[in-house]
Amino acid sequence: MIASLINGEERDDLSILDRGLQFGDGLFETIAIVGGEPALWQRHMERLQEGCRQLAFEPPDPGLLLKEATRLIGRRQSAILKILVTRGASERGYRVPEDTRPTRILELFEWEGPEEDAGGIDLRLCRQRLGQQPGYAGLKHLNRLEQVLARSEFDQGEGLMLDTEGCLVAGTASNLFLLIQGRLHTPIIDRCGVAGVVRALVLDVAREMRQPVTVRRILPDELEQAEGVFVTSSLLGIVAASSIEGVRKQVQVSHHPVLEAAAGRLFRA
Amino acid sequence: MIASLINGEERDDLSILDRGLQFGDGLFETIAIVGGEPALWQRHMERLQEGCRQLAFEPPDPGLLLKEATRLIGRRQSAILKILVTRGASERGYRVPEDTRPTRILELFEWEGPEEDAGGIDLRLCRQRLGQQPGYAGLKHLNRLEQVLARSEFDQGEGLMLDTEGCLVAGTASNLFLLIQGRLHTPIIDRCGVAGVVRALVLDVAREMRQPVTVRRILPDELEQAEGVFVTSSLLGIVAASSIEGVRKQVQVSHHPVLEAAAGRLFRA
Repeated sequence: MIASLINGEERDDLSILDRGLQFGDGLFETIAIVGGEPALWQRHMERLQEGCRQLAFEPPDPGLLLKEATRLIGRRQSAILKILVTRGASERGYRVPEDTRPTRILELFEWEGPEEDAGGIDLRLCRQRLGQQPGYAGLKHLNRLEQVLARSEFDQGEGLMLDTEGCLVAGTASNLFLLIQGRLHTPIIDRCGVAGVVRALVLDVAREMRQPVTVRRILPDELEQAEGVFVTSSLLGIVAASSIEGVRKQVQVSHHPVLEAAAGRLFRA
Repeated sequence: MIASLINGEERDDLSILDRGLQFGDGLFETIAIVGGEPALWQRHMERLQEGCRQLAFEPPDPGLLLKEATRLIGRRQSAILKILVTRGASERGYRVPEDTRPTRILELFEWEGPEEDAGGIDLRLCRQRLGQQPGYAGLKHLNRLEQVLARSEFDQGEGLMLDTEGCLVAGTASNLFLLIQGRLHTPIIDRCGVAGVVRALVLDVAREMRQPVTVRRILPDELEQAEGVFVTSSLLGIVAASSIEGVRKQVQVSHHPVLEAAAGRLFRA
């Protein structure tokens, strides 16, 4: 970590009474800094605000966050900015005291910038499943044990996760698109998983181009049938799978106009 | 909070890179200190060790924890000791670096001691469901958003939680026993929920007395049919429900020999 701010102060330690630690009672965003600017800032802020609304605590002012982010980024061109917002500190117990005030944490990390697509990414299926939590599916909250355990199953590439009913949901740190008979499909994020900002960008670009993505339940068998498979994330951007469970895939991002157009709009503020 | 130790040092702040905060990547125990001694210490330690084993990180030495707990408790007779153990600090990302070292956090809180059973506790059903996570059901891990959201649904008493299939699992911070036709039943904790130490004590006492508890899926309808309903936790002990969703229940803990015997063994080390 290069630098950090907690509620605007240059600090890197937090009260052990913070509910982020006690219960994972908070949210986070991982933001690519490209050309000195936070990419997809507006989308990150919208998800963060929506998350606070759903968890029922006061969202931080996006203007204040941008001011603090700018201060932290300084003159750096490429970096990763991680923002955590928690419900704040309280004594032990799940109950939220009335005087609880949210904590905002900004962390800046070294980064080389987005990787050039070096022939795609190898994907595999993880054994660790995603529990269904329709109450707050889609949020990037701090309860991430499932992802930690799934990520420990492999070294390189990305692991795909199924929900407890066996439907494909997402990668451990990415969303998923399948190209089937020339059309894009992506798993619906209504029971578990994170609704990624790059996923949202692809959905919007697809609508604009009148080639809407089909958002639905997808079974793992469909990975094999798909001509191409793609993962998306704030840091990866949009990357084609070069293989799935060892079976090669060939279709590149440039193959589909929606993905190509979305990729072109990715690393801008 | 009265006092705290982080890895044996008198501190109350933690690195924001700790994975406990980043991902809820850790476990906790809430322990009643009664007569200056941690109650059910052995059971708490066994669950903690088992949790570390399942999350695949090195468990803290129970002897060291006891030494630190004793130092923190000092001459106090009644208090609450909360122990958190996380996988330790790492840079961002789900992947666990090889050099990660677990963090142990001990926190001591004021407590009046176990409440005398003042006519029981009022129970209600929460809307917030428990997602199914068979991979690590039963553990007292730090991913507790479900409990936080359920706890925000009511003021007094305790809220009962169903899993996403509609089966009764537990209270927000307690386990559950039903007395049906003179026999004790408790929800099976195999898909979600925490396997409480007092629950384990009741199960053991029941076996010793040759009146074993039936551990199975229980539907919420059965609450109404049950003669008595009881919740258990490290701090509550064993408490009879005085009402469920406003409907009165009358049967007390003393009514059943197993519950009475378990209650008698509760607040001992």
